[in-house]
Amino acid sequence: MKYPNAKKKIQAEKNLANLGMTLESDIDITNNYYLNNNIAVIHKKPTPVQVVNVSYPARNKAKIVEAYYKTPSTTDYNGIYKGRYIDFDVKETKAKTSFPLRNIHPHQIEHLRNVSNHGGIAFIIVHWKLFDKYFFLPISVILKYWDDKLGRKSIPYNDFLKHGYEIKFNYHPRLDYLKIIDQYY
Amino acid sequence: MKYPNAKKKIQAEKNLANLGMTLESDIDITNNYYLNNNIAVIHKKPTPVQVVNVSYPARNKAKIVEAYYKTPSTTDYNGIYKGRYIDFDVKETKAKTSFPLRNIHPHQIEHLRNVSNHGGIAFIIVHWKLFDKYFFLPISVILKYWDDKLGRKSIPYNDFLKHGYEIKFNYHPRLDYLKIIDQYY
Repeated sequence: MKYPNAKKKIQAEKNLANLGMTLESDIDITNNYYLNNNIAVIHKKPTPVQVVNVSYPARNKAKIVEAYYKTPSTTDYNGIYKGRYIDFDVKETKAKTSFPLRNIHPHQIEHLRNVSNHGGIAFIIVHWKLFDKYFFLPISVILKYWDDKLGRKSIPYNDFLKHGYEIKFNYHPRLDYLKIIDQYY
Repeated sequence: MKYPNAKKKIQAEKNLANLGMTLESDIDITNNYYLNNNIAVIHKKPTPVQVVNVSYPARNKAKIVEAYYKTPSTTDYNGIYKGRYIDFDVKETKAKTSFPLRNIHPHQIEHLRNVSNHGGIAFIIVHWKLFDKYFFLPISVILKYWDDKLGRKSIPYNDFLKHGYEIKFNYHPRLDYLKIIDQYY
């Protein structure tokens, strides 16, 4: 994701932001497809912004002149599919062997755990840039690593192959992640 | 709601914004209560903002220096309760006899219709300031007026009494709207 107040160099952030945009825009296009074809109602949440100062240069147009990005308290995407509550986030990685859990905010993991406990379908979608592969990874797999205090703080690519579900890139829709839900939930 | 680029005088908007804050903050407190007591996972979505210009005055802190409020494409609140997808918006009115439908964005009504068609629980919560009464109004009631091209573009208070469900203001939680769902869904 792209929250520029993270502790990284600006240039690195800009690159990350661009990477994030691609997967996000593919998911947005997929969600539009779902919406227009009456398959599901899934939207991206707006990026949370703390507004500090607003000016009114023209008659009716408020202009925000000072604001900051906030850490999100939940994930970016949620909605409904066949009566089920769906909740997920998307991440891109340039890693070769292992996906570092620090790519996900602790709030987001706890939020997905909550959703799952309440009967929702909670997961992340990860794009492995180097292999150009997309995986649907259920929260249960993430929690196995997250809750293991002694364990690794990253999820090996092999576990994506074993416990995740590959989403093939396509055109209509681009990343048909709901197909995974049809097959495995 | 409080989107300052609507066609209204600035002062009127500020008043509306303040009014909105009260009901919204009561709902936020209620949602925190639900979350902390493991009853439901329902969050407010961030207000959508179009960021135009960002500066980097300090090392790692992005400062947004030009941005504008956007019209929301969905409602403000959604989440999960007992496995069900929940979606709603909250509105305040100073009206005495009838709630004008122009208080709700057309997108929001169509979004709630979609949600309902997909098996979710879709509604609005309206605070009638003059009577200090809160009502849970199912989307089906709103659509009866919205879809009637020849009909009234406002919903009479009497219809809130007849077809809506009153939510009593309380302390823990403040506005226990999930109780309505337990009773009527």
